Amino acid sequence: MPVYADPADGLRAAAEPLRTWTAEIVAWIGTPADIAADVAEILVASDRRGIASHGTARLPNYLSLVEAGVLDPAARPVRVGGRPALARFDARNGWGHHAGRVAVDWAIEAAREVGIASAVVAHTNHYGIAGWYALRAAAVGLIGVSLSNTSPLVAPTRARTALIGTNPIAIAAPAGRFGSFCLDMATSTVPRGRIEVAARRGETLPIGWAIDADGRAARTPTAALAGALHPLGGEEPSGGHKGYGLALAVDLLTGVLSGSTFGPNILGLFSTAGPSDLGQTFVVLDPAAADPSGAFESRLEGYLEQLVAAPTVPDAPGRVLVPGEPEAEVERRTAADGIVIDQVHARSLIAIGERAGLPFPGASSGR
Amino acid sequence: MPVYADPADGLRAAAEPLRTWTAEIVAWIGTPADIAADVAEILVASDRRGIASHGTARLPNYLSLVEAGVLDPAARPVRVGGRPALARFDARNGWGHHAGRVAVDWAIEAAREVGIASAVVAHTNHYGIAGWYALRAAAVGLIGVSLSNTSPLVAPTRARTALIGTNPIAIAAPAGRFGSFCLDMATSTVPRGRIEVAARRGETLPIGWAIDADGRAARTPTAALAGALHPLGGEEPSGGHKGYGLALAVDLLTGVLSGSTFGPNILGLFSTAGPSDLGQTFVVLDPAAADPSGAFESRLEGYLEQLVAAPTVPDAPGRVLVPGEPEAEVERRTAADGIVIDQVHARSLIAIGERAGLPFPGASSGR
Repeated sequence: MPVYADPADGLRAAAEPLRTWTAEIVAWIGTPADIAADVAEILVASDRRGIASHGTARLPNYLSLVEAGVLDPAARPVRVGGRPALARFDARNGWGHHAGRVAVDWAIEAAREVGIASAVVAHTNHYGIAGWYALRAAAVGLIGVSLSNTSPLVAPTRARTALIGTNPIAIAAPAGRFGSFCLDMATSTVPRGRIEVAARRGETLPIGWAIDADGRAARTPTAALAGALHPLGGEEPSGGHKGYGLALAVDLLTGVLSGSTFGPNILGLFSTAGPSDLGQTFVVLDPAAADPSGAFESRLEGYLEQLVAAPTVPDAPGRVLVPGEPEAEVERRTAADGIVIDQVHARSLIAIGERAGLPFPGASSGR
Repeated sequence: MPVYADPADGLRAAAEPLRTWTAEIVAWIGTPADIAADVAEILVASDRRGIASHGTARLPNYLSLVEAGVLDPAARPVRVGGRPALARFDARNGWGHHAGRVAVDWAIEAAREVGIASAVVAHTNHYGIAGWYALRAAAVGLIGVSLSNTSPLVAPTRARTALIGTNPIAIAAPAGRFGSFCLDMATSTVPRGRIEVAARRGETLPIGWAIDADGRAARTPTAALAGALHPLGGEEPSGGHKGYGLALAVDLLTGVLSGSTFGPNILGLFSTAGPSDLGQTFVVLDPAAADPSGAFESRLEGYLEQLVAAPTVPDAPGRVLVPGEPEAEVERRTAADGIVIDQVHARSLIAIGERAGLPFPGASSGR
């Protein structure tokens, strides 16, 4: 997940009032309070970790889905079939955040019992940051994996158009003084949001980020936005087929496995043309099942100590990082200073608050 | 896994005599016949799929480990502890191929029972191609994942030296007319063998493959071989931190989880300075546990049909591929024409055959 600096101006809100307000707005649109609490928790967790693209800034998009009748705010996931270590949940087109929280909690309990467990969620919606669900397992001493398919934005290696999603992979584990190891990555070189940032900054693009509408390397954000993202690895000689394979593997384990939509058949992001019908899969593993001594976490911590102490390349902007460290650093900053929401999104949130009679809790960021 | 054209000259051997001979050689060095059969099966499977770097060409390296007393050819893996869906095996420094086969077979049986299962193997040796174990699950209708840590060859993002392995990820699933979906990838941009090929061809290297001994982009194979490989994604702006994160996640799930060696502490590839002490982890998932209708495979086949029919970029060397298709194509070719082993490795195998009194079954490739 890309972490960006706070916007230069915007509205600043403390996490707790923002979470309360978000839950109230989600409830106002017809969501039961317990479901709304999950949605708000996960959206604000994204803001707290500096991933604005997946946080409360998306609230207007979610509300549009509810208002268009393509997301059922009151639906509750039901478990259908399954075995001791694998359950399939039908989210019945309800909130993805809630279905994901229910599913990963089931996998956490089952993994403690049988060692490893998977919860496969069908017919669901966007669930925010993949990492939140993996971190929920890591917070209780387990290894968590969280996968989702997403709207087609990536061209498979050799293909001219976007046919697969940026399908994220998140893996988290408890890591001693490092808190949690948390890899939370799109399987594209960069997310579409990074191209939008490049457009605002007037940057040219390196080879390996995207192709244009004719399938050639996109060197400007405008060309890239009319084309498709490259999978991680970029072009074929630099390993793009591996990123493509990973994105496809994620879809296989989510959309295809769950019996939801997949690949090119998924609607555009936040389209109100119909239900999103996404698939999400969680795998939770109890390291104590492999090593009852409980030494997994201290071994991992020792390994990470070796990595962060390594000599760096001449132009390194800092020491070697542990996956999840940048997000954890932002989490400390936002806990102290609040969350800054950029002007454009803040205006939308203020307007929603006015409609609902629930004033948005942000104040000018005062920079 | 990189598939290369057959060497221009070399020795040609039919797969079956090569397998029989390999098993005899492995038994000759002190390996029980059933274990030797597993080793030969998996080494020759690699040759059959065109992945010479992991096939019988490595036999001299394995024999050196046995002769140096750092691989116990007669050791049998033992299951220690575990729960219904997770078992830990101690390979007791025996053949990695055999321990891997035993472990993935356990996971296959357990997944059928409980839905998903993992076998974690400690204190093991190189196990050949990661994909073999994943394909073993796919061949019986299951989804298989195979992971291994390996000797340090990759520099983590920002680090100047090789601290982590090219730690492979393999995922396979049954895929209708496509046979099996099989992603089998190193988590580096390219394997070290690809740099060696570039050296023989006198190629310069693109940015994103490797760094030199000073931590700067390596533009020649010589500089790269004195430096370290880049993780998948290459440098940081093109997503190298994601490949680094994946490589680290593989090590976390194999070396760290199993209680074996990890990261910079792993000995060099085929070093006889001590036991390799690697970790390998298998995860097997029964798609019928999520979807009793058995439609998973036909959905995946339909998805892949959509991808291979997609319009291609202007300079595409062919249609969009399904992961595993190039290797399956080589498998058909070697079944018809035999396996060609390059001169250098063929000479080593002939010498081993002479020492053992077991003549190598290859004949001149006749090109």
